[in-house]
Amino acid sequence: MKTATFYHAGCPVCVDAEQQFVSALNPSEYKVSVVHLGNEKARLADAEAAGVKSVPALVVEGTPFHINFGASISDLK
Amino acid sequence: MKTATFYHAGCPVCVDAEQQFVSALNPSEYKVSVVHLGNEKARLADAEAAGVKSVPALVVEGTPFHINFGASISDLK
Repeated sequence: MKTATFYHAGCPVCVDAEQQFVSALNPSEYKVSVVHLGNEKARLADAEAAGVKSVPALVVEGTPFHINFGASISDLK
Repeated sequence: MKTATFYHAGCPVCVDAEQQFVSALNPSEYKVSVVHLGNEKARLADAEAAGVKSVPALVVEGTPFHINFGASISDLK
């Protein structure tokens, strides 16, 4: 299995949106893990080593993709 | 099938990186299309209507995710 790790920091709107994204990955090819860096500070070094500069980010087979969807103002109302 | 559309503007390094990303999507759930907005300007309105503000971006079931991996300087050398 290939690996994909989704790093985030807990914004509920972002978590909803990006779990949709994570669930779109091919489950027969990828083992996906989700890491809340706010709660799991021990994983910060892993994230940095993979090249993660901001969250949310998805690391696919060692390549970091920064995803800046964030939250729409309208979603927060 | 659900739909996912990847919008980009032709940077070769980005295309390589993000085709890896697109190929990670579950093929039994998603019909994925790739649109080069530099070449297919008629699709700009679709991209804007989906909420795309910058490229590269992936629209999954109508939700835009902006991906700012871009290119590492080292990849361009």
